[in-house]
Amino acid sequence: MPNALLLIAHGSRRPEANADLVAVAASLRRRLSDQLVEIAYLELAAPTIPEGLNRCVEQGATDIRILPYFLSAGAHVQEDLEQARADFLRRYPGKTCHLSPPLGLHPLMIEILIDRIQEDL
Amino acid sequence: MPNALLLIAHGSRRPEANADLVAVAASLRRRLSDQLVEIAYLELAAPTIPEGLNRCVEQGATDIRILPYFLSAGAHVQEDLEQARADFLRRYPGKTCHLSPPLGLHPLMIEILIDRIQEDL
Repeated sequence: MPNALLLIAHGSRRPEANADLVAVAASLRRRLSDQLVEIAYLELAAPTIPEGLNRCVEQGATDIRILPYFLSAGAHVQEDLEQARADFLRRYPGKTCHLSPPLGLHPLMIEILIDRIQEDL
Repeated sequence: MPNALLLIAHGSRRPEANADLVAVAASLRRRLSDQLVEIAYLELAAPTIPEGLNRCVEQGATDIRILPYFLSAGAHVQEDLEQARADFLRRYPGKTCHLSPPLGLHPLMIEILIDRIQEDL
């Protein structure tokens, strides 16, 4: 297990869209209580990814996993996340940093979608 | 129940990112077998949202539900979807069209994220 998780969302000008990631991080901390969980946004909101990675390091993390909170990663997202990881490793040569794939097509995603259709009728 | 569902994703230059929506639509059709399910992309891929809405109408739909396959909707996404709905209603005054909220913070989303962390260790 890495000793820090950095959850990434795209970031929005709408505060309510950004608030989701704060709530996701709080749920993850409850579920993974021995794990440092920080958040960052790719753009349009703070903290940025370099700021989020610094927060992990300041709290003693040496092995960070970047977790994209995206359904899928388009070209722009994937390139930006790989660049952020490479920049971090250059700045902190003693640390490790892994970039996870996006959430993708988990079977539970269909259950969420069907719930959403039914709630909303 | 509306008689057509139009699933919307952002659209990407990466075909594998767009393929997710095709798979989600196939799963939904299996689960909701009496329901017409079509897909469309906000940008960068086809069919576009007007094309997707037309496909629904051509197959006899009179009541369409637009389902954003987004975790949350930023300002640009929300405005574009509302605009697409308004344009459709102007073109087809006899039809109804409802825009659902994005997937949002469903409790199962945390399970998907934890599975993703564990699969990937």
